[in-house]
Amino acid sequence: MTRARVISVDAMGGDKGPAPVLGGLNRALRESPDLRFILHGDEAELARFLRKRSFAALRARIELRHTADVVRMADKPSRALREHRGSSMWNAIETVKKGEAAAVVSSGNTGALMAMSVLLLRKAPGIDRPAIAVHWPSSAPHGYNTVLDMGADIRADARNLVQYAVMGAEYARINFGLERPRVGILNVGTEATKGRHDLREALDILLAVSAEDDAGFECVGFVEGTQMFAKGVDVFVTDGFTGNVALKTAEATAAFIRAGLREAFQHTVLSRLAALVAMTSLKRFARRIDPRRVNGGVFLGLNGAVIKSHGSADAVGFEAAVGLAARMAATDFATGVEQRLARINSMTAEERAQHAARHSTERGADE
Amino acid sequence: MTRARVISVDAMGGDKGPAPVLGGLNRALRESPDLRFILHGDEAELARFLRKRSFAALRARIELRHTADVVRMADKPSRALREHRGSSMWNAIETVKKGEAAAVVSSGNTGALMAMSVLLLRKAPGIDRPAIAVHWPSSAPHGYNTVLDMGADIRADARNLVQYAVMGAEYARINFGLERPRVGILNVGTEATKGRHDLREALDILLAVSAEDDAGFECVGFVEGTQMFAKGVDVFVTDGFTGNVALKTAEATAAFIRAGLREAFQHTVLSRLAALVAMTSLKRFARRIDPRRVNGGVFLGLNGAVIKSHGSADAVGFEAAVGLAARMAATDFATGVEQRLARINSMTAEERAQHAARHSTERGADE
Repeated sequence: MTRARVISVDAMGGDKGPAPVLGGLNRALRESPDLRFILHGDEAELARFLRKRSFAALRARIELRHTADVVRMADKPSRALREHRGSSMWNAIETVKKGEAAAVVSSGNTGALMAMSVLLLRKAPGIDRPAIAVHWPSSAPHGYNTVLDMGADIRADARNLVQYAVMGAEYARINFGLERPRVGILNVGTEATKGRHDLREALDILLAVSAEDDAGFECVGFVEGTQMFAKGVDVFVTDGFTGNVALKTAEATAAFIRAGLREAFQHTVLSRLAALVAMTSLKRFARRIDPRRVNGGVFLGLNGAVIKSHGSADAVGFEAAVGLAARMAATDFATGVEQRLARINSMTAEERAQHAARHSTERGADE
Repeated sequence: MTRARVISVDAMGGDKGPAPVLGGLNRALRESPDLRFILHGDEAELARFLRKRSFAALRARIELRHTADVVRMADKPSRALREHRGSSMWNAIETVKKGEAAAVVSSGNTGALMAMSVLLLRKAPGIDRPAIAVHWPSSAPHGYNTVLDMGADIRADARNLVQYAVMGAEYARINFGLERPRVGILNVGTEATKGRHDLREALDILLAVSAEDDAGFECVGFVEGTQMFAKGVDVFVTDGFTGNVALKTAEATAAFIRAGLREAFQHTVLSRLAALVAMTSLKRFARRIDPRRVNGGVFLGLNGAVIKSHGSADAVGFEAAVGLAARMAATDFATGVEQRLARINSMTAEERAQHAARHSTERGADE
């Protein structure tokens, strides 16, 4: 049994208790029968769930580790750190730290999960700040773009943004098999003169690196919110404040449209009929933007893969998160990132200045 | 003829030339027959359009002022300022400056319109930075929330955010007849401990002011992207960078869903049939979130009302922008804002400290 096929699971963190967690593991196992799980939580409660006949195969692949303590959704990260060492979340992360598993999945409190992960796993070499990456539905052939940071930190300077870009590109390569992911920095316009100084500085560095053959990604420059669902840009880089607002705004837009369509369809007898007939079409589309399938933010930049599943995820959602954990566990994400960042840090001031000069010429005289 | 019923119009700025402009004015005149327009642009071209029989009534309410110069969409603001004084946009704003009209409408280049407006009209008393406000579709009874700043400036400190809040509240009162608009500051969470220092400082000031009986608005605290389409918060305050990204992300989400539904509906013969029947329902809903009706960002904080219509607006869109201009022209926006800001500036450090102390207690020990 290689460590890379063992996944550590916080069975207690989600809004809906252990049921969707076990359902999700069961589904994941059907896809990948060689996975093994170390499950942290209330042993008696978990054992009761596992008695279900459909879980027979799953039982053989699970090691239960008991703890009664649980981090609650309302717990503040600092308090969780002080008072919930030994919780199912803490123990699940610690299992990765000890080298018994290669990735951890939890649908618990995001802030607490990040705080505990940073404390236990520590930041990876070359990384100043970890970031949360999500799959963003798009018209790309593989169906998703990658966006980061979604709120690990509300600030990001040029150096942070460059690290996010390198991590996001590596992540997109692993997850979507993209050979040379196209990376853009989210801004209020695509012109290189736009935006805060930090963004322009990050752009200069990324363009300079991306000009090299072995960069492993292509920097496409500044990109706008309008492009986030399109193909053409694989990785969107932004600070955690902007990313968080963008994600929540997109979710709210989809919910508003969903509610509006439902209401519109109920307006007349004929439209109610149409809705019935249309349901299949609508469901087909809904599957594509189903947040359960998109499910799973990934914490990048730690010594170990940490997958955050949505708090209200069901078995389908949790399965997606476990699949992501298995992919991350099977690859050496950290080494690729470390090497690229080392190259960036070793670029001479002269090399950067050359690129910067070229870009400021392209920008023209107007600022 | 009171000045408040005269609106100055840049007839040349939009992507589609003068046709939608004249169509929009014609529609607006049917609603409000007492309006008069001073129209800036190519006189021969405009006269040719105005020969249409359906414009007979409109002709009598229009004063044409010739200029051949036009600001193009691609012109950078600084260049427009240097090279296009005397353009239809410039002259349209100048008409407000001279006191001949109470508001100006243009569907031209946003950056140039803002730069020229600031230069010609100057910032209103008490305002450090003007802001762009938009109507955001929502489930509020009147159908819209107000969001600002949408990109007048990419940065905003606590003082700017407070000014945006006061302007946004006054604007919501005028446009939607809300007696005491509820104002929130956009953040990554609703807890008062979240976010950047600037946001917390702005919140402290707004909560302190809002506690007074005659505040004219109610500060509801920090709000999230998920709430933007909901009722319960009337005015969302944020910096121009975040506002711009949020708006573009929402537009992109709607476009992505629209394209996805269209594709889903074409999938089978039955679903194509359903789409036909469903069309009425879908159109009914589409009208509610029609960007043409939402059309019109308003520049707040200048000595005069400046309405930016969407560059690709048609007659319906331009009519909405003119309606907005007429409402702004009929009210004394600036005086209300100035008085409230003066009150805020006169709050003693002691008064603020009292409120701040109270709120930090509410925040609890955790940070």
